Amino acid sequence: MASRAAAFAMTALSEFELVARLLRRNTGHRGDVVLGNGDDAAILRLPPEYDLVVSTDTLVAGVHFPPDLNPADLGYRSLAVNLSDLAAMGATPAWALLALTLPAADEAWLTEFTRGFFELADAQRVELVGGNVSRGPLSITVTIHGQVLKGQGLRRSGAGAGDLVFVSGSLGDARLALDFLERLDSLPEVARHYLYQRYARPTPRLAAGEALRPLASSCIDISDGLAADLGHLLEASGVGADIRVADLPLSPAFRQFADPATATAYALAGGDDYELCFTLPPPYADRMPTIAAQTGCALTAIGQVRAGSGLRILRSDGSEIDLAASGFRHF
Amino acid sequence: MASRAAAFAMTALSEFELVARLLRRNTGHRGDVVLGNGDDAAILRLPPEYDLVVSTDTLVAGVHFPPDLNPADLGYRSLAVNLSDLAAMGATPAWALLALTLPAADEAWLTEFTRGFFELADAQRVELVGGNVSRGPLSITVTIHGQVLKGQGLRRSGAGAGDLVFVSGSLGDARLALDFLERLDSLPEVARHYLYQRYARPTPRLAAGEALRPLASSCIDISDGLAADLGHLLEASGVGADIRVADLPLSPAFRQFADPATATAYALAGGDDYELCFTLPPPYADRMPTIAAQTGCALTAIGQVRAGSGLRILRSDGSEIDLAASGFRHF
Repeated sequence: MASRAAAFAMTALSEFELVARLLRRNTGHRGDVVLGNGDDAAILRLPPEYDLVVSTDTLVAGVHFPPDLNPADLGYRSLAVNLSDLAAMGATPAWALLALTLPAADEAWLTEFTRGFFELADAQRVELVGGNVSRGPLSITVTIHGQVLKGQGLRRSGAGAGDLVFVSGSLGDARLALDFLERLDSLPEVARHYLYQRYARPTPRLAAGEALRPLASSCIDISDGLAADLGHLLEASGVGADIRVADLPLSPAFRQFADPATATAYALAGGDDYELCFTLPPPYADRMPTIAAQTGCALTAIGQVRAGSGLRILRSDGSEIDLAASGFRHF
Repeated sequence: MASRAAAFAMTALSEFELVARLLRRNTGHRGDVVLGNGDDAAILRLPPEYDLVVSTDTLVAGVHFPPDLNPADLGYRSLAVNLSDLAAMGATPAWALLALTLPAADEAWLTEFTRGFFELADAQRVELVGGNVSRGPLSITVTIHGQVLKGQGLRRSGAGAGDLVFVSGSLGDARLALDFLERLDSLPEVARHYLYQRYARPTPRLAAGEALRPLASSCIDISDGLAADLGHLLEASGVGADIRVADLPLSPAFRQFADPATATAYALAGGDDYELCFTLPPPYADRMPTIAAQTGCALTAIGQVRAGSGLRILRSDGSEIDLAASGFRHF
């Protein structure tokens, strides 16, 4: 553990140790947790036919979320954005570690935070096997572990010319929700609830990722916006792609409440979507409706991979949107 | 990944992405890294006869280290304090993930930080398989992964009445170094170098931990001071212990430069030692000199476990030091 006893940090240390006990919960639901949270490290057992899949992500107050975000939603979201990375690998989640820094040892806040965190953890059979709480500016780092059959993990590389480009769910909702965070009351009840949840409690597309694992040629999760993340995928695969703006999946709430002047930018570059973008050899396309129905998650073809490099975003009339020139990157 | 595209975080995002590339280095030295840093997650392969050992720790500027600490030393230290947790489990290190928040995308600072981090990583054959850099107050979270033969990991629990209590290395050096950080020039060269290294670049006792794994009945790493951490071990084991102040291992520099009024408190409760405290069935005691010689790490018997509970700290005359009454907890 990091020392909390240094001379410049003599105050209120035991309070942080105390609230950290809120993180010590072993459901016993997973037989692969040999030793859970509370020792110097956790001991975990991986089935021999599986690879370990690991990712870490940090959410900083005022950078990745508004500092006054409801703590239960923040707890849920902190785990969700990490699970989204596992979904993109086609992995099954297993164990998480949580490193929290809080300005004060606020037990009420942390109780709510863990409630949201454990709600999603329980739904996905994730065990929290390590955690600590430090004094400092509000920040959350989750490290997530999943399992995938040996050699079967999805990657960003692997897209081939001719593959179809798909996205899960719908795009732009979370970015639109941010505009309304301060004035949610101005929306009708259904849209308010829908958009807020899309921002605060994104659904990691784990079931879709697992179903796509044997089919997709490449996959990435959309955190920084479709254009940026599909761009990463194409770069890793050494190919280019054309996508059709008219085919981007948009929710009814988004269609109704997004400002037409920014709607396309939000859908392409809004960020915080936590949907999957993947490429698929055309012969598998007819399986998508079944997987969508089974996983409760729309899967929409939006374009096609081609040889070369770069992402072309095409309007219905065939003209190209120039992302760099339009300043979309600023969204 | 966590979105860096939200509306309240529009500035200088690509700079952080850019400097994060300094973390993307795959030495190729480990055949068990199927997919390293750079995708949505890493893919790792654990040998079937091993358990996975995982721990995470956060260092916050101004709380766990002085904000102006040399970045190369900070990089080294960030990994060292995590490796110390693996040492306490008797585990062999394998993979690390690094989540950094920095106030600015300072490439020169990060270059130095990674130099120190990779120096220790290379020495211990640790591969950095995931990492990200966010904008925010300076803070470092490392998640470390190790391997230990199935069912063989050391724990805090397991100490039995009659076992001997040992510590590795020497105690109090790092706490003493903190007093001198602002006036290191007042020390002679050898002591200055020794004490500064003991604070800034603690040596994780990995070789000792691995050698002790089949022998020790319990083990913990000393981060918050011997008294506190041995207290955790005794609590987890459901036993008590008596230790002798006169037998605490102290370095020559500590004996020479520690203020006699605080020396005992520093050795018992100074923190930042990153030594191992372990319990040993007496029949194994005669093996300690050989392990100490082989691992280059002193192993000193300081007391004995007894039935009951609580830690008694005894002076040479047999009288007891009352930690709570003496205010040692404030050191």
